[in-house]
Amino acid sequence: MKIIYSDEHRNHFAQGEVYGGELVTPFERPSRIEYIMRELRARKLTDISPPDVLDMAAVARVHAPDFIEFLETAWRDWTAAGYRGEIIATVFPVPGMRKKPAKFIDGRVGYYAHSVETAITAGTWDAARSSAAVALSAQKIVANGARSAFALCRPPGHHAHRNLYGGYCFLNNAAIAAQAFRDAGAKKVAILDVDFHHGNGTQDIFYERSDVLFLSLHGEPEEAYPHFLGYADEKGAGAGEGFNVNYPLPRGTPFGPWAEALEDACGRISKFGAEALVVSLGVDTYKHDPISFFGLDSRDFAAYGARIAKLKLPALFVMEGGYAIDAIGVNTVNVLTGFLGGA
Amino acid sequence: MKIIYSDEHRNHFAQGEVYGGELVTPFERPSRIEYIMRELRARKLTDISPPDVLDMAAVARVHAPDFIEFLETAWRDWTAAGYRGEIIATVFPVPGMRKKPAKFIDGRVGYYAHSVETAITAGTWDAARSSAAVALSAQKIVANGARSAFALCRPPGHHAHRNLYGGYCFLNNAAIAAQAFRDAGAKKVAILDVDFHHGNGTQDIFYERSDVLFLSLHGEPEEAYPHFLGYADEKGAGAGEGFNVNYPLPRGTPFGPWAEALEDACGRISKFGAEALVVSLGVDTYKHDPISFFGLDSRDFAAYGARIAKLKLPALFVMEGGYAIDAIGVNTVNVLTGFLGGA
Repeated sequence: MKIIYSDEHRNHFAQGEVYGGELVTPFERPSRIEYIMRELRARKLTDISPPDVLDMAAVARVHAPDFIEFLETAWRDWTAAGYRGEIIATVFPVPGMRKKPAKFIDGRVGYYAHSVETAITAGTWDAARSSAAVALSAQKIVANGARSAFALCRPPGHHAHRNLYGGYCFLNNAAIAAQAFRDAGAKKVAILDVDFHHGNGTQDIFYERSDVLFLSLHGEPEEAYPHFLGYADEKGAGAGEGFNVNYPLPRGTPFGPWAEALEDACGRISKFGAEALVVSLGVDTYKHDPISFFGLDSRDFAAYGARIAKLKLPALFVMEGGYAIDAIGVNTVNVLTGFLGGA
Repeated sequence: MKIIYSDEHRNHFAQGEVYGGELVTPFERPSRIEYIMRELRARKLTDISPPDVLDMAAVARVHAPDFIEFLETAWRDWTAAGYRGEIIATVFPVPGMRKKPAKFIDGRVGYYAHSVETAITAGTWDAARSSAAVALSAQKIVANGARSAFALCRPPGHHAHRNLYGGYCFLNNAAIAAQAFRDAGAKKVAILDVDFHHGNGTQDIFYERSDVLFLSLHGEPEEAYPHFLGYADEKGAGAGEGFNVNYPLPRGTPFGPWAEALEDACGRISKFGAEALVVSLGVDTYKHDPISFFGLDSRDFAAYGARIAKLKLPALFVMEGGYAIDAIGVNTVNVLTGFLGGA
């Protein structure tokens, strides 16, 4: 399996995440990727290349121009305002207020954010672009005929809406890749999101489309981030009605019921007739993840990798979350080797 | 002038405010009130009493029951979740997401907040209730025939919506007092908000009503908090159409144009035929306020106090913002003495 990776992810390393009312070292940190790289090499998955130069036109296929401009210019405007910390949103256009574009950076930040834990730093835009480049380069490998590829993306992407960042995500790598499959000729693309958290950004981007089927297994939003999307009754709208499938699962869900939901999702993907599959691969379903609440063991990741292989679809794995640092490598690589063994 | 004050404001002293990407000592801090108390005594405004016991029914006239329950139970749920810091909201139901009530405390907090700078602590609910009690007790004095009274409220209130907290505000003291005037028999009540920031919460509460005229002079929302309300085209809705008046003013506005806006507001209050006036008194219009951008001098506060007196209305002054600690006493008392001298 070809793997695409870029060192530039290190440009995004926020010093602080607002968590439990404190500023803590972010759970989403560069060492996550180092641990995955180490495990890939240990398990002889060493066909690792850097990405091609990013095609911004491909990014603009799923993100709004004003949102892209915001990400490009936010740090400049923030430092010009004299602030000494990293960019953290502080006021939001929630219901009862108006979504009006502000001029001052505080208002601009709140306009384009849905969450607070995610700080933007001097290097964030570079890292976000490199992450999208990783996804697109890996997508191209699959579009050109490979059975699979692994985009070792960081920062992750699935919480990024068309025009919102948050949840550690800025550009939606999986959505950008899915769109690239469509633009390369695939008539139907499925996105299977197995990260512990609902892929609200990906859902948002494809919610009114029937050409991209989105399925997400995740902690039920009453109990889990992002709280305000991810319910089972979100089934798509307009032409997209029926092409969005959420599997919200309760606190403590072990592999059994999780795998049943996956089985249902795989059935739908087959029935849909997808020509390509994008897997939003978060491994925070792991039982010891510090900010999640499912009960998967490391071996379960290999088992579901094998199940995904049985779909017999060209598959692009796009890295999303996973915060149990000591296990992130094993769990991630288990999915890939499970897939390769089951193919 | 009778003044109502409660020591219990000290129960709310958040250790941290998210500002410029850092956790700083909150600008809205207990010492603000100590400085005002000192100046009141120095200027012989010493008719200071504690509030009566809070009538929660009066609070429930302007705030939603579920919001009140949230404020009552938030700290219990937060500490039960094992968090070590104060309550800071981290994810919001912005457009693109759904305003669905969550069960887990993180989701509950985001559901009832519009801002991040405002931490809830163990003592916040006690302090917020004492602040509402201060407003209601001072209101009663005016309703019973006094020319004026000063409610030395803390925490402030004007950013609190019917079902949202933020901007240092939890219960909307001015709105609660205005409603109490109505319930005591006043047919029409005007609320004049002279705080630097738009009184978005007060606007929200009375937006569809014609019996309470709301007028706010403030930094234009493109440039100033709360960014997503406070535009001139927000004129009320339904029965309230025409009974909401915003005066957004640009960066650097000195007293001249500010006083012109006040003159227009006073004209509207007179024409409206208000039987009682509530003044949301923030003194962050001061030229050295650390988080605001108008240019008023200390003497200007006395001048506008005198102008308000010329309305010849029973007047309740309710303390809101003001963060230039060394001047907050002088500026606040200047409004009151200006009023008393102009009456």
